[in-house]
Amino acid sequence: MIWDDLDLELAKRRDQGLLRTRRTLQSPAGPHAIVDGRPLLAFCSNDYLGLAADPAVAAALADGARHWGAGSGASHLVSGHLEPFQQLEARLAAFTGFARALTFSTGYMANLAIVPSLVGRGDAVFADKLNHASLIDAVQLSRADHVRYPHNDVATLERLLENSTARKKLILTDAVFSMDGDLAPLTELFALAERFDAWLVVDDAHGFGVLGPQGRGSLAHLGLPASPRILLMGTLGKAAGVSGAFVAGTESVIEWLLQTARPYIFTTAASPAVACALLASLDTLASPDGDTRRAHLQALIARLRAGLAGTPWRLLHSDTAIQPIVVGDNHAVLAVAQGLLDQGLWVPAIRPPTVPAGSARLRVSLSAAHTLDDVDRLTTALAAVAAPAP
Amino acid sequence: MIWDDLDLELAKRRDQGLLRTRRTLQSPAGPHAIVDGRPLLAFCSNDYLGLAADPAVAAALADGARHWGAGSGASHLVSGHLEPFQQLEARLAAFTGFARALTFSTGYMANLAIVPSLVGRGDAVFADKLNHASLIDAVQLSRADHVRYPHNDVATLERLLENSTARKKLILTDAVFSMDGDLAPLTELFALAERFDAWLVVDDAHGFGVLGPQGRGSLAHLGLPASPRILLMGTLGKAAGVSGAFVAGTESVIEWLLQTARPYIFTTAASPAVACALLASLDTLASPDGDTRRAHLQALIARLRAGLAGTPWRLLHSDTAIQPIVVGDNHAVLAVAQGLLDQGLWVPAIRPPTVPAGSARLRVSLSAAHTLDDVDRLTTALAAVAAPAP
Ligand SMILES: Cc1ncc(COP(=O)(O)O)c(C=O)c1O
Ligand SMILES: Cc1ncc(COP(=O)(O)O)c(C=O)c1O
Repeated sequence: MIWDDLDLELAKRRDQGLLRTRRTLQSPAGPHAIVDGRPLLAFCSNDYLGLAADPAVAAALADGARHWGAGSGASHLVSGHLEPFQQLEARLAAFTGFARALTFSTGYMANLAIVPSLVGRGDAVFADKLNHASLIDAVQLSRADHVRYPHNDVATLERLLENSTARKKLILTDAVFSMDGDLAPLTELFALAERFDAWLVVDDAHGFGVLGPQGRGSLAHLGLPASPRILLMGTLGKAAGVSGAFVAGTESVIEWLLQTARPYIFTTAASPAVACALLASLDTLASPDGDTRRAHLQALIARLRAGLAGTPWRLLHSDTAIQPIVVGDNHAVLAVAQGLLDQGLWVPAIRPPTVPAGSARLRVSLSAAHTLDDVDRLTTALAAVAAPAP
Repeated sequence: MIWDDLDLELAKRRDQGLLRTRRTLQSPAGPHAIVDGRPLLAFCSNDYLGLAADPAVAAALADGARHWGAGSGASHLVSGHLEPFQQLEARLAAFTGFARALTFSTGYMANLAIVPSLVGRGDAVFADKLNHASLIDAVQLSRADHVRYPHNDVATLERLLENSTARKKLILTDAVFSMDGDLAPLTELFALAERFDAWLVVDDAHGFGVLGPQGRGSLAHLGLPASPRILLMGTLGKAAGVSGAFVAGTESVIEWLLQTARPYIFTTAASPAVACALLASLDTLASPDGDTRRAHLQALIARLRAGLAGTPWRLLHSDTAIQPIVVGDNHAVLAVAQGLLDQGLWVPAIRPPTVPAGSARLRVSLSAAHTLDDVDRLTTALAAVAAPAP
């Protein structure tokens, strides 16, 4: 029968140490997780500023629910565009410095909206090899040529652009790479976009809220202008602590997305109360409290890197909240994660195909909700686990 | 410059009457909308049971926010699978009669998860020509052959299946067609799936909550079994009144989705409070209150059809809450919608490419939150507008 393959394939993955396990949390998001009744210190989430369980954001969600109900009842273009979304768009545009913004239920859908609306068959997308899965799927959906360049390799990208005969060109990159934590060379990518008259689409899932003044994101961090050739995608379920995403750009390009992007048109708007929660979250992001959270996060990052310096653990070069420790082998990384779990620490083991084969890693992620002691506990626990051979 | 095309293209669409307008609501979802300060009686939403602004569902969202915070902080497979999602999955599986269920942030993403996880290059998807946009995109993403059959044409589908040499086959259909309101011949499609050993994927976005005992959906309505070759997708932002979606199937096929579906793996889990709201919404769906709402909806449908019988307005054959009136021409349908709007009634005009060229229509949708008087107001208002030439 057609379903017989699935059990075989699942068993094969189990043997290869590639089966993913999902754990149920009995606690709100945050460093202090309860899993199967057991308390764990977690270094898992993308809640970089500790806003996912923040009382003010939660209260805004609750108030929004009471005022607006639980659902929007339709897509934005039919009758689902309730006032809180309108306010959220305006706020996001002002915050990022672009003329206009559009919100989506997830970053995955925002990426799927952008690429096919800008390019199609006969066009070419120039994409970093380590781009997020949603960007890869977005290119596939667009039917444009998918030209992949080695990670952050501007020289190769330049050559590829020079040799391209594509009608329209689009440069597509994570701003902060989700499994590596390093930044894309956005200044250089923007210069190439100008020279070759290309779109530059920046997925700032992991920079928005964390980098730049007030957490305005990677573009602000690097002082890049709100150019008409740049589209900025930011997610609202990571540093902003809720869920959803936005795209910011010129008046025209955002209107174009609204008119043509299938993942905008053919889906129900998110709960209006979620937009209310996000307005509260943006208040905090841009406030002195936000600055304090970002400064504390930097202190945690420095503490971890100092704590692991001179040990056999190989931290990747990253100044962001994502601090991956590369182990290499799939089974080895599971053993290390298990060794930490035995000591009450939860660090996700990331394996192929999420990362390239042979580069399985612990993805340590830090949050302003961690304390310096939490970080020291991780360093100590790692010392008690056999590090992989160098 | 690369962005010059957009303004030209936007102007062209404006001339063709194809530009979509988005209105901001100053009111919660429901028949009594406030748009630009003006009260309108709306027949727009997919909130078929009137739960989007239901106080009990809103209270569950608010309580969920206070208990669980506003965000889940990570994807389900990292650390975002909070207890309310686990409960929601169990409840949805029991409610639909399948062994297991998996939740998604949107139905759009659920569809994008299902198809590429089951089929790929060398396989074939047999798809109704009027399938929802998200199903079309799902096939494109899967790289399987997209074999489209005329709307609900079982005989043609049979011939196409007979002649197919594809390795794996998948039959893909809306259960209730979103712009037409009619049902797919699911009994016949299931028989063909059995005969040709194909998957049958049923998108019950507009049947779940509305059709079948307790609103268990289109499969229950037709008495179809929870076969291992059926995957049921249901959305949670329409009759259920909140947002999100689920896929139900066997233990194995759901585990397979969890392990492989990119729109499940590579996205942040929804707000845990949304899952709390959905648990409350499912309580109502399955309760005598749910039965009362469904019975009232049927009465509204009957009232509208009786009210328009013998008038020049062409209602499609539909027994569901979706009651489209086909007008044909793009400008004509806009004129009719404007005529209704002048009388304070809001009915969306749906134009290509959402519907086939030449079949622009008013998509009247009814909700248990409407009164019989509301329906009579629509019938009266239509009588005052010049109907299109037959
Ligand atoms: C770089 C990147 N882009 C996009 C996404 C998708 O955003 P969302 O989780 O809101 O779907 C993620 C994470 O999930 C990501 O890491
Ligand atoms: C038939 C059908 N499938 C899927 C969807 C997408 O579901 P969602 O709105 O939850 O993204 C919709 C409506 O939006 C629909 O009408």
